[in-house]
Amino acid sequence: MADVSPALSDSDAFSSNGDQSGGNNAGVTTGAIRGSRKVHHTTESGLKVPARRIELSNGEHLDVYDTSGPYTDEAAHVDVHSGLHPLRTGWTDGREHRTQLGWAKSGVVTREMEFIAARENVSPEFVRDEVARGRAVIPANRCHPESEPMIIGKNFLVKVNANIGNSAVTSSIEEEVEKMVWAGRWGADTIMDLSTGKRIHETRESILRNSPVPIGTVPIYQAMEKVDGDPAKLTWEIYRDTVIEQCEQGVDYMTVHAGVLLRYVPLTAQRVTGIVSRGGSIMAAWCLAHHRESFLYTHYSELCEILRHYDVTFSLGDGLRPGSIADANDRAQFAELETLGELTHIAREHDVQVMIEGPGHVPMDKITENVRREEELCGEAPFYTLGPLATDIAPAYDHITSAIGAANIAQAGTAMLCYVTPKEHLGLPNRDDVKTGVITYKIAAHSADLAKGHPRAQERDDALSKARFEFRWHDQFNLALDPDTAQSFHDETLPAEPAKTAHFCSMCGPKFCSMKITQDVRDYAEKHGLTSVEAIEAGMREKSEEFTEEGGRVYLPVAD
Amino acid sequence: MADVSPALSDSDAFSSNGDQSGGNNAGVTTGAIRGSRKVHHTTESGLKVPARRIELSNGEHLDVYDTSGPYTDEAAHVDVHSGLHPLRTGWTDGREHRTQLGWAKSGVVTREMEFIAARENVSPEFVRDEVARGRAVIPANRCHPESEPMIIGKNFLVKVNANIGNSAVTSSIEEEVEKMVWAGRWGADTIMDLSTGKRIHETRESILRNSPVPIGTVPIYQAMEKVDGDPAKLTWEIYRDTVIEQCEQGVDYMTVHAGVLLRYVPLTAQRVTGIVSRGGSIMAAWCLAHHRESFLYTHYSELCEILRHYDVTFSLGDGLRPGSIADANDRAQFAELETLGELTHIAREHDVQVMIEGPGHVPMDKITENVRREEELCGEAPFYTLGPLATDIAPAYDHITSAIGAANIAQAGTAMLCYVTPKEHLGLPNRDDVKTGVITYKIAAHSADLAKGHPRAQERDDALSKARFEFRWHDQFNLALDPDTAQSFHDETLPAEPAKTAHFCSMCGPKFCSMKITQDVRDYAEKHGLTSVEAIEAGMREKSEEFTEEGGRVYLPVAD
Repeated sequence: MADVSPALSDSDAFSSNGDQSGGNNAGVTTGAIRGSRKVHHTTESGLKVPARRIELSNGEHLDVYDTSGPYTDEAAHVDVHSGLHPLRTGWTDGREHRTQLGWAKSGVVTREMEFIAARENVSPEFVRDEVARGRAVIPANRCHPESEPMIIGKNFLVKVNANIGNSAVTSSIEEEVEKMVWAGRWGADTIMDLSTGKRIHETRESILRNSPVPIGTVPIYQAMEKVDGDPAKLTWEIYRDTVIEQCEQGVDYMTVHAGVLLRYVPLTAQRVTGIVSRGGSIMAAWCLAHHRESFLYTHYSELCEILRHYDVTFSLGDGLRPGSIADANDRAQFAELETLGELTHIAREHDVQVMIEGPGHVPMDKITENVRREEELCGEAPFYTLGPLATDIAPAYDHITSAIGAANIAQAGTAMLCYVTPKEHLGLPNRDDVKTGVITYKIAAHSADLAKGHPRAQERDDALSKARFEFRWHDQFNLALDPDTAQSFHDETLPAEPAKTAHFCSMCGPKFCSMKITQDVRDYAEKHGLTSVEAIEAGMREKSEEFTEEGGRVYLPVAD
Repeated sequence: MADVSPALSDSDAFSSNGDQSGGNNAGVTTGAIRGSRKVHHTTESGLKVPARRIELSNGEHLDVYDTSGPYTDEAAHVDVHSGLHPLRTGWTDGREHRTQLGWAKSGVVTREMEFIAARENVSPEFVRDEVARGRAVIPANRCHPESEPMIIGKNFLVKVNANIGNSAVTSSIEEEVEKMVWAGRWGADTIMDLSTGKRIHETRESILRNSPVPIGTVPIYQAMEKVDGDPAKLTWEIYRDTVIEQCEQGVDYMTVHAGVLLRYVPLTAQRVTGIVSRGGSIMAAWCLAHHRESFLYTHYSELCEILRHYDVTFSLGDGLRPGSIADANDRAQFAELETLGELTHIAREHDVQVMIEGPGHVPMDKITENVRREEELCGEAPFYTLGPLATDIAPAYDHITSAIGAANIAQAGTAMLCYVTPKEHLGLPNRDDVKTGVITYKIAAHSADLAKGHPRAQERDDALSKARFEFRWHDQFNLALDPDTAQSFHDETLPAEPAKTAHFCSMCGPKFCSMKITQDVRDYAEKHGLTSVEAIEAGMREKSEEFTEEGGRVYLPVAD
């Protein structure tokens, strides 16, 4: 990238939230995450698939899914000026005119599918089959070889997207690149660059060349800049050229609001919050101004051909999504969803991959219907939702209001969750907000993985709870989604290093430690084989006497 | 209270988190919450029921349920040394030996029920009937006349409890009283004092005399202090005297772990995290040491008589609740729940009110079963759950992991949610953590109220969304659960006062404002009666020409 202000490393963002991890390389955060290191698993055909290994003090370790790319690899050389090593260069030989969907349909397992199978602990054939059905997508533009293949589908781990991007009001290229690296560090599976301000092309170029995860955009935003922000002046030609420009740069998936039809616009007139989608309102304005269906709809097949050429994935936008609890699941929303269903099937005929964007603001009792209708109308295309917020009454806490909705809609089948930060509705997220948003959404996604019974999901919960029960404090911190903050909170009350191995904590103090007491109960019960109701009925009285003889000690002194 | 350190007003807690609201009175926060004032609604018999009135810039206002007591009443004189005015003195005349349940069964509507009916916007008869069925409880010890009557039951607004209390390791009386006032300010419906450190009696006295909400305790903690922390040394007499001491002070509900039976203990031996309840582990240790059922179980009827005398409500503790995802819904947990069911029916025969405590840590797919079983076994006694956490992997964010579980279990029928703060598992919450925990749980509770279709719940969402759509920024802030933080976040990007009325925000900037565009679309559609599909099909082309003649302007300049 052109130049990265070294001043960035002195910015508030870098000294805030008690985060002690990561060095700084020309303005981006590098270095391993506390308590872990980068490892690579080699597939049959020799592909190196990254994972993050958390080393535990008891000699065990846990390898977790790793979205952070080379930035957390001590062995990797990072230079944001030259960009990341183009991992996938050469992988696409001989399929310039085929998409992952095209290969999947014809029974071919691509390198991307093999890479993904290793990441998700499933068979390559399973990956291929899910892609062939259109139930999963692999956003991987052949012009973005720096990206590590990943998959979005209801039968895989629930994914999280982080939005970044400058606006007319604020932010710089350097900040956006760091936000991208920072979001990936904490677990963002994809990044959307929603820049609407100056230097949109350069900002996107810097992000793409340095991003190990797929990048999504909303091309209409850049097209609007080309017509001085007047929707009525938009044309198919201006939009098409913008899309081609972005495809050439390597954008992996694009939000297209082709489902906003002329006849749907009046359905929003009586809403509490009308149309809240930028793209949706722009296209609605265009439709009214020209009294024609939008060029996105009338030129949709040409658009499919362009995206197919680069293997760019459609993210069909819900331009009429509800912007408040009052507007959830209304006619406008579901009318557009029907059209998105038609467009899904057209795209598939062109071998173009498709996912469907969803709300927004939805009370918990109306969440499941959104997933059911989307799967029905859109042939199980991966659902990609923004939250939804389960209530409107907590601006400044919308990462939480929406995490409640996100966990629920993901449990119901949503494949990817677009994060919401504490700044939603109030301002643009800074670096700390991005981290808070990503961690919050990793919680929602993982809660859904557990609820869906994903085979390996509970391993991390069990490892952390075991560490907690055994008072392996550092292991508990390192197994957490945010080891830095977990340790800093513990330090607030018990900073001393001995406390990190002490068999008690500040909540109960030594005498009241239930974990310590139950450990003794457990040792006692196991020692005497009292692990069943029968056993205890039989020999309990005798055992009890022994227990009392042993001193009846049900907890040990602190020092041991 | 003995003395309140004025130094408290200089403590970090008071200058933190950008909170600009509230004055300080001898160490506690007073003053109206931003954008609102205290009002009182007078009932038929002349009871003055408090509410918080949020005044809007469009001349409208919204009255919301108010838990903050006299501390937010500019007209009230607050002196923590002499305590609050004993609101309910005289109310209890002639029913020294009857409980709310007793009166309800005999068809009498008490003043407490009338007060509650006004707060909850239901009829007094409905309140009486729910209490008579045991489906709702009114925790109101006649020795705590300072408390404003409130109700806990699935057919009323979901309530939130905030835990406070010192430990052997940290905290002071002054801090705990301020935490109580602070928690109520942000919406805590009840407070539990879990102190286990020094001066337990004095701490509780200061809290009770100054608390406008019901206070709950776990008497076994204080009893443990009387036996130097050795569970084996506990006796019924020591425990009974502690309970009477606390009843006399005015404690409104007490957690009693009477369901931990000898034969259940071995069922926890194979768990990942054994017994995590302090009270549960203490009673388990006692049972093993003496090989007898605990004195809580064998003297339960005597205990009922004591609680009945003061009208103290049982909160039957789940001493064997799961402490990790791995242990959720296991034999030990549900075996204890069966015993809690038996104890519930015994208490009701004594006219003692009962609620049931619940987990803990439960994955989303196992949450509903907890509510179903509790209602079946415990005759629909109000369920009072701690979260539950939907995953174990995010220490430092457990207010969020648990808010996801809390919203879901409340939707399923839980009547009160015990909050979890960001410090859970890591340390004791400070004042900021208490606020974060309360606000997070108000979000979970309100999301459930919406999902359950509570008749008035959506009014606040609609008012806030309308304010958002109309760019009434101050109204949006003031309608938020946390007006101070909402405004401070907006100030970060657009501090200037004009921006508070500007018809755009920092996210999109003026040209991209979807709300502005949709407002124009809406005005246009409404002006031409295009509010139905038929209307637009009919006259759209012509209208469209007008629209273009009008300039095709679909957004207005910032200045208007």
